[in-house]
Amino acid sequence: MGGDHGPSVTIPGVARAARLLEGRNVRFLLCGDEARIAAQLGRSKRIADLCDIRHSDLVISSDDPPAQAMRRGKGSSMWNAVEAVKNGEAIAAVSSGNTGALMAISKLLLRMAADLDRPAIVASWPSMHGSTTVLDVGANVGCDAERLVDFAIMGEAFHRAVHAVPRPTVGLLNIGSEDQKGHEELREAHAILRDGGLPIDYRGFVEGTDISSGVVDVVITDGFTGNVALKTAEGTARFIGSEMRAAFTSGLMSKLGALIANQALKKLKHRLDPNTVNGGPLLGLNGVVVKSHGGANDEGFANAILVAADVAQSRFADEIHANMQQLMTVLAHPPAAGEVS
Amino acid sequence: MGGDHGPSVTIPGVARAARLLEGRNVRFLLCGDEARIAAQLGRSKRIADLCDIRHSDLVISSDDPPAQAMRRGKGSSMWNAVEAVKNGEAIAAVSSGNTGALMAISKLLLRMAADLDRPAIVASWPSMHGSTTVLDVGANVGCDAERLVDFAIMGEAFHRAVHAVPRPTVGLLNIGSEDQKGHEELREAHAILRDGGLPIDYRGFVEGTDISSGVVDVVITDGFTGNVALKTAEGTARFIGSEMRAAFTSGLMSKLGALIANQALKKLKHRLDPNTVNGGPLLGLNGVVVKSHGGANDEGFANAILVAADVAQSRFADEIHANMQQLMTVLAHPPAAGEVS
Repeated sequence: MGGDHGPSVTIPGVARAARLLEGRNVRFLLCGDEARIAAQLGRSKRIADLCDIRHSDLVISSDDPPAQAMRRGKGSSMWNAVEAVKNGEAIAAVSSGNTGALMAISKLLLRMAADLDRPAIVASWPSMHGSTTVLDVGANVGCDAERLVDFAIMGEAFHRAVHAVPRPTVGLLNIGSEDQKGHEELREAHAILRDGGLPIDYRGFVEGTDISSGVVDVVITDGFTGNVALKTAEGTARFIGSEMRAAFTSGLMSKLGALIANQALKKLKHRLDPNTVNGGPLLGLNGVVVKSHGGANDEGFANAILVAADVAQSRFADEIHANMQQLMTVLAHPPAAGEVS
Repeated sequence: MGGDHGPSVTIPGVARAARLLEGRNVRFLLCGDEARIAAQLGRSKRIADLCDIRHSDLVISSDDPPAQAMRRGKGSSMWNAVEAVKNGEAIAAVSSGNTGALMAISKLLLRMAADLDRPAIVASWPSMHGSTTVLDVGANVGCDAERLVDFAIMGEAFHRAVHAVPRPTVGLLNIGSEDQKGHEELREAHAILRDGGLPIDYRGFVEGTDISSGVVDVVITDGFTGNVALKTAEGTARFIGSEMRAAFTSGLMSKLGALIANQALKKLKHRLDPNTVNGGPLLGLNGVVVKSHGGANDEGFANAILVAADVAQSRFADEIHANMQQLMTVLAHPPAAGEVS
């Protein structure tokens, strides 16, 4: 069990998730170093009773290239976790290890679903209305129109599965809301989503500001733009946090005020803590795999497990399958320009 | 004089800039409705003495398409301001009007410098080390490698002119720091900047988080990614601001703390206020044109004027010319892979 902290964070994360998932009949298969896992599990018999351990000596490290992880990763803890999904032993795999390796191993063992080509990584983004689902945030550098429409189908089904919103709204990330703005592939995807008759509540182009304002539930973009946007937002939040700390320690009155407003500041910190929205599924595979941030704490790891359980126990896969069928029909008979179905 | 507020904001902005530019022998040519401008100017004889007015009845509105502004914009206040730069009557034009129209009219009247193709829009981004120069943030949707290198040359000279940093550092925005990451055109631009012998302190690829951490002074990206990043950062800042307000009004203790920490909160607000970094020059033209945000207040408009004066009174144009010459030599004899000059 990897990530930056190992079982000392992931096992308390499992314990927290187990409490939150009570009544949903979830058990845990822990893949990794048996001795280290058992040492952590020893603290709670109740949790240990919900867990099985699959020992592995082999660990994929954070700087192993994906190709090497695929060739030599067999029998590693990451491999075993994904293989358990393939064999039907587990309904989902959660890993806080190397993202590229997790993607490569997942694709190799589980294969892509339907006509999908590569997994997309989803980010859950705190917004004025709760959480915005953004994809892709890093798996696919360049995306044609069909790929973007695939993301819309996957992202919409994901948002419904995890946030219990019956009919999530979807927008396409662009640099303006007019029809003629942006890249060719964006305008093509826009036409398919608007006129293709897919059962998706598509609201058109959205801009960078709209991600955290929560204008739509799901924001679709290519992996390059999505990754830059995600990291830019992280950087902005970190910058503002550092300016806030500086402001509140800059004088006696500021310090006093911060002391008195302590509860409010704690609540604010929790609301902006990436751990509260941790858990980025790799969508498009024949099976559920969720990436947890390597630096997440136990609360963050527990959230990633909840996301995995929500997706695995939803009708996510069936919905994607049905909508991909519909998309194939649309692409075989593309809508004429201006035609609205 | 346009923008969302007109002369009631721009004239106080001019007055503020005049005070800050005292001793630099700057005068102002105010283009717009004479009666409205004169009414505002009447409040201060000292400022009025520094100003000339060029009357115009015609106004380009915020939703006029650029092509229409070019065809029918002659004699409008925006046109007159740019024309004054062309005629040598003014050293720079500052406008808070329609960006697309300003770009089209500037390109038509001033023409592009050297081998440049389209203006790039620069954003000054608050960072842990002061301010990061980011371009392009919206003028050029797709960019090839040469265009990105042009941006590096222009952005570096701009940062030196405005921030008095003798040798600004430059980075190329990507989704990872390894050489093989990102688009083809990014890797090509990376090779030219690294090995081409340009007199630029190039530090390689940077990521979205690095913009506000201030790892480099100048961040280069295409206009699509830059625009999404800028707006995402704005959205994130706005979201955090709204969460902060909610936190500090959520209970008696929080309110009391916020009241006591009032000075610190004001300072923080000022530091994060977009007005303090307002002023986005259109780089690459034969002349200085600066776009002020339409919603900027008088402080913001004054900042845009300062940026214009700094660029116009620097060696900016000569430096770009010399570096473009050097780039032409590099492109005629591109560096071999692996060769480092």
